[in-house]
Amino acid sequence: LGVGHGAYNGVVKVSQAGEFALIERLAGVLGGEAPAELLVGIGDDAAVWRSGGEALIATTDTMVEGVHFLPDAAPWADVGWKALAANVSDVAAMGGTPLFALVTLGLPPERSSRAPEALYEGLRECAAAYGVTVAGGDIVRAPQMFVTVALLGWAEMGEDGEPLLLRRDGAREGDVIAVTGALGGSAAGLLRLREGGQADDPLVRRHLRPEPRLAAGQAAVRAGIACGIDVSDGLMQDVGHVCERSGLGAEVEASRLPLSEGLAKAFPDDAVTLAASGGEDYELVLVGTAERIDGLRAALDVPLTVTGRMKAGEPRARLLDDGGAEIALTNTGFDQLRDR
Amino acid sequence: LGVGHGAYNGVVKVSQAGEFALIERLAGVLGGEAPAELLVGIGDDAAVWRSGGEALIATTDTMVEGVHFLPDAAPWADVGWKALAANVSDVAAMGGTPLFALVTLGLPPERSSRAPEALYEGLRECAAAYGVTVAGGDIVRAPQMFVTVALLGWAEMGEDGEPLLLRRDGAREGDVIAVTGALGGSAAGLLRLREGGQADDPLVRRHLRPEPRLAAGQAAVRAGIACGIDVSDGLMQDVGHVCERSGLGAEVEASRLPLSEGLAKAFPDDAVTLAASGGEDYELVLVGTAERIDGLRAALDVPLTVTGRMKAGEPRARLLDDGGAEIALTNTGFDQLRDR
Repeated sequence: LGVGHGAYNGVVKVSQAGEFALIERLAGVLGGEAPAELLVGIGDDAAVWRSGGEALIATTDTMVEGVHFLPDAAPWADVGWKALAANVSDVAAMGGTPLFALVTLGLPPERSSRAPEALYEGLRECAAAYGVTVAGGDIVRAPQMFVTVALLGWAEMGEDGEPLLLRRDGAREGDVIAVTGALGGSAAGLLRLREGGQADDPLVRRHLRPEPRLAAGQAAVRAGIACGIDVSDGLMQDVGHVCERSGLGAEVEASRLPLSEGLAKAFPDDAVTLAASGGEDYELVLVGTAERIDGLRAALDVPLTVTGRMKAGEPRARLLDDGGAEIALTNTGFDQLRDR
Repeated sequence: LGVGHGAYNGVVKVSQAGEFALIERLAGVLGGEAPAELLVGIGDDAAVWRSGGEALIATTDTMVEGVHFLPDAAPWADVGWKALAANVSDVAAMGGTPLFALVTLGLPPERSSRAPEALYEGLRECAAAYGVTVAGGDIVRAPQMFVTVALLGWAEMGEDGEPLLLRRDGAREGDVIAVTGALGGSAAGLLRLREGGQADDPLVRRHLRPEPRLAAGQAAVRAGIACGIDVSDGLMQDVGHVCERSGLGAEVEASRLPLSEGLAKAFPDDAVTLAASGGEDYELVLVGTAERIDGLRAALDVPLTVTGRMKAGEPRARLLDDGGAEIALTNTGFDQLRDR
């Protein structure tokens, strides 16, 4: 983020360009004319494709050993759960319903067969919880274990024959920014896990077994809300994606962030930072008029907290203290490729 | 292949179980009741899902640096082409038409941005050649470069409202086994590449830029042919998959194998072995009555050669010499996980 195009017009290391600049650059290589069937392409939580009278939602997410999970800390079954859950969350962030998944497993040949079996077992549990069918996949030899899930789903159709979707570019000036559930628990759980924490710690469990907000996303599109994203990279970074795609600024009030249970007690000094930038909470950010957000609350079985507002101006998200001053975050969220 | 379940009921290395045994074992973990919408699940070239009045085809393939391609020998653009082409071939092997792809790139952060850009450029060329839209994807940090493509397509519907598909379990006793194009060129090209061969060598080009037989697969289902597979692992192994799924044996006559141009001259002693077990030719094996295979020939712009026949008996494929004796192949094809 914030890396201008001029800075990497030549040959650079991918760590210098960063994940988001590289995605943009590669989107240019792939670009060309998109067919009319492609309703949503690169740059949202998932792609949307019109097929006959239906709108298909397609997304993919990967977890690599040593990068996205620590093989000694995260049980393989939890890796399997999370690999699918991250994709279900993408479909939730479009307001859709998942259908079926393809699962690719990269495996070092010397690995015990217990690891892939436990991974698939956790994946099966997540599939059962969210009504997903595992329809196929691939197993490949690889130097490190990784799992890639591709998930297909569908979007409900509106009366006008257009699909009901939560899009990153759907925010309007004056819309309020609401968040489902609570934030910061996953990042706190990761810290606990690194210190030897176990799955009986609710924060650790929140990190290992995230519960995507599928029903909330579906209820949101039915309530006429047109903008949303899931909290995967970190709240401020994810709200920042909405800003860029919608051409608006955003103000988020730190004191209104819903903190995960036990977070303030466990990390009194860092609770707000973890909630604002921790990532992997897989909550939904929903952006719409105050009336529609209020109306949605009754339809949800999770809390929905208004934390900020979309404003005209520079397309970035600012975190404000009670006096209205901006709080600087040193770590604004996760970037796949930058050196950390 | 040929590893009984009893042999790995406990904990073993995945290299001992082998790719196909592990897929079967994992399919058991995932198993449970498949919904009626899943028309074809794990065990064919692609999954098929009924959605409204349509039948979606979904497949995924991965190429890992150092495993599926040699970073010093294969230009990145060719890696990109082949990563998508392997998926297009899976859709061709179902008789379908591709629609859109999701592309996941695993990248070491210290890598030059040239590599992913060249890879995407080759992928774009393949997408343009086969009418595929790149709709989205993911970029992740990984210790070794890899590319995973998930491809969605559709199957034409028959008059009975059922999709027209080439299935591995669609062979009948007495059906003839036909192969499009020519075999062995890709494996020969890989040998040439390892000896410093360049892309101006037709065998090398065949290895680096395979051309999936999309039109042939579509013509085959329209001609009433119900069984097919693509030659990715190696002809005898791939015909073996048809045997297992159809519960039949197969006899393939070595003297009738269509050899790639230049293959016999370049590798006079190994030409038949390369054609029978070399893999990655991405031709189609089509299995049907002699009349239907004959009738199909006129509709194709590639040669179609009858090379054998399905028989009752042990479900495996046997390669025969002119005297009818079985030719033993030491390398029957590619297994992702076995030590080689």
